[in-house]
Amino acid sequence: MDPKEVHTGAIFDPKQSPHVYHLALDIGGSLAKLVYFTKDDDHFIDGEEGTSHRKALEKSNGSKKYPVLNGRLNFKKFETSKINDCLEFIKSMKLHFGGSQLQENPRSHPIAIKATGGGAYKYADIFKERLGIILDKEDEMDCLVAGANFLLEVVHQEAFTYMGDQKQFVEIDQNDLYPYLLVNIGSGVGMIKVEGEGKFERVSGTSIGGGTFWGLGKLLTKCKSFDELLELSYRGNNRTVDMLVGDIYGGMDYSKIGLSSTTIASSFGKAISDNKEREDYKPEDIARSLLRMISNNIGQISYLNALRFGLKRIFFGGFFIRRHPFTMDTLSVAVNFWSKGEAKAMFLRHEGFLGAVGAFMSSDKHGVKELLVNQVVQRTPSKLSFVTDKIQGQQEGEFNGDESIECSVYAA
Amino acid sequence: MDPKEVHTGAIFDPKQSPHVYHLALDIGGSLAKLVYFTKDDDHFIDGEEGTSHRKALEKSNGSKKYPVLNGRLNFKKFETSKINDCLEFIKSMKLHFGGSQLQENPRSHPIAIKATGGGAYKYADIFKERLGIILDKEDEMDCLVAGANFLLEVVHQEAFTYMGDQKQFVEIDQNDLYPYLLVNIGSGVGMIKVEGEGKFERVSGTSIGGGTFWGLGKLLTKCKSFDELLELSYRGNNRTVDMLVGDIYGGMDYSKIGLSSTTIASSFGKAISDNKEREDYKPEDIARSLLRMISNNIGQISYLNALRFGLKRIFFGGFFIRRHPFTMDTLSVAVNFWSKGEAKAMFLRHEGFLGAVGAFMSSDKHGVKELLVNQVVQRTPSKLSFVTDKIQGQQEGEFNGDESIECSVYAA
Repeated sequence: MDPKEVHTGAIFDPKQSPHVYHLALDIGGSLAKLVYFTKDDDHFIDGEEGTSHRKALEKSNGSKKYPVLNGRLNFKKFETSKINDCLEFIKSMKLHFGGSQLQENPRSHPIAIKATGGGAYKYADIFKERLGIILDKEDEMDCLVAGANFLLEVVHQEAFTYMGDQKQFVEIDQNDLYPYLLVNIGSGVGMIKVEGEGKFERVSGTSIGGGTFWGLGKLLTKCKSFDELLELSYRGNNRTVDMLVGDIYGGMDYSKIGLSSTTIASSFGKAISDNKEREDYKPEDIARSLLRMISNNIGQISYLNALRFGLKRIFFGGFFIRRHPFTMDTLSVAVNFWSKGEAKAMFLRHEGFLGAVGAFMSSDKHGVKELLVNQVVQRTPSKLSFVTDKIQGQQEGEFNGDESIECSVYAA
Repeated sequence: MDPKEVHTGAIFDPKQSPHVYHLALDIGGSLAKLVYFTKDDDHFIDGEEGTSHRKALEKSNGSKKYPVLNGRLNFKKFETSKINDCLEFIKSMKLHFGGSQLQENPRSHPIAIKATGGGAYKYADIFKERLGIILDKEDEMDCLVAGANFLLEVVHQEAFTYMGDQKQFVEIDQNDLYPYLLVNIGSGVGMIKVEGEGKFERVSGTSIGGGTFWGLGKLLTKCKSFDELLELSYRGNNRTVDMLVGDIYGGMDYSKIGLSSTTIASSFGKAISDNKEREDYKPEDIARSLLRMISNNIGQISYLNALRFGLKRIFFGGFFIRRHPFTMDTLSVAVNFWSKGEAKAMFLRHEGFLGAVGAFMSSDKHGVKELLVNQVVQRTPSKLSFVTDKIQGQQEGEFNGDESIECSVYAA
């Protein structure tokens, strides 16, 4: 498709709308993720109004005024099975028209939106029919990696460790970021060795992921949603369901090989008991056992792959985690246990939006860039830089992962 | 315990019994395994009666007659939850008295039987109270490895590969056996790097094992036994339950990273569907999905560990497999897939009895050896060698894993 023939979602008409919308999608097996940019009113940097961060950037660029958009990256998710809700949201927010009222009557050219994930293929027709949108497909892995790199390089307090109820933000030295293992836990799990911008390889994965947790959980409990199942697992005790080393060894450790009596020998191994039915087990115990089984397994396979390629850092992303303390703790403990403290599990604040952010970034080519071109007619930017000042919303420990990110778009 | 003060199960009184029994136990989380030796009538080799194999051995030893026991190693298993059945069997067969009638009234000395597995600790009291047996505990890993080494070194047609419905026996060159990875799939899974006799290290494991298959299977189906669940999985189609790559990609492959449309993206990922309840899924489909999920995962983690330590051969043992073609095939395919054909999955005919055979072997010290000493008064054997001629029972392709092994015990 010739990009000249289509409008991107980022078309900006300063006469019409106080906000610029720019949209990208990541439609996975379970969840559809949206990232869109909303512009603040100030289109051009003003030395007096800018934050200190912006000033610093100006300074480093010789205090010249640069064309800039100040605004926010916004995050939103829908269940893929409820793709209609997603379509409605886009329609109601007019995201596909860049938020502009005037563009509501589609011109003869179709509108192209960057999209990734399997759903970009599966739901291409429905987006075309219902919204007149052409999903401009970007490779899933490309987007995941681009999104993770962007967030890790640019966003303050994006990465953190979590163990024993302790969250700790990690300052990432951009010169020491690569190589790392990116583990994206969606319905399934992908493991990617990332060595730099656009330099990566999918090295492993497992089918035991978020879809397994929710799928098995749905079959075994009466939970109506993934979040309800997660919530349930908080209150559960897996020891009623799992066979522990101590259950086999009559309460003793198997200390010779370093297995304590509380180590899980067999997930769900206690459910083989003859005189019990499913109804005899508490759903919260089942939920917790499931969560431990899956988190543990992902942590173990991740570590084995990190080891294989000599990667010290493992970043976990994807919507399975959902900032769930127990999930993060189990992943961390697994990585710590199997690596004997050598490797560290880290998490991303915008864990679920890596692919969507990557798709968003990929539209720089004729999205945000064009937007700037439209504004600053005389200037064609060769490179865009996003500067994010801070994450909006809650304080440490209370973020929920879809906080908008305040950011400025510079043309350098 | 001073071995002089106890009788082993192998006490042999040629005046009393036509058969010698010698017993060892491996009591795991789900199954209790028994190995016992039964003696044929001919105590001394006779050049005319011996098989060609025996003759060959005699010849290599200079055609001298050696003291020898001809007989069989027998294999038997019970569910650990039905440990009473196991006790009854031992009692009825008088295995703990070496099969001798006269010894039925226990002397003042207790009888010691070699035993391994967690149940050797857990059920020690019950064996003492009910049968007057002291379980002489041997380390589980020691026994597993000793058992595997013995079977691989000594027993003809013990190891085989299985892929695409093709079973192929593997001739193991004893000089090229080590190092290998031994993966024992019981309720949980242990992975051991074996470098030689008594030279090994437990390097990994996973809690997603046979207990998980049976535990989850029991919660999700109405199956009454592990074997029934396995049987069910034969007829199932996992595609109704698992989310395939094609389900996410609208029927397409994700060929860029080598995932075909039929690759499982998320085990049980299709069960998240809103408008279906557990009753809407066929139990056979659930069983098959479970089996694939668990076999695949074990194959993957095994391969990653084999890779880590540069081990080309992976031997799978333990009762999870049960010579189930589909299980073996999935394990083989997983190892083949992840290793890109570099590593090979192999199976052991007596897969479930590795620990029990190892415990049996450990009693050589004052078991079978004493037995020979009793017979050949003037001679103290310094080394025993088992020679197995063939596996009794079914032809190739029909064995069921608990065939007795015809063997001769030589004192060299």
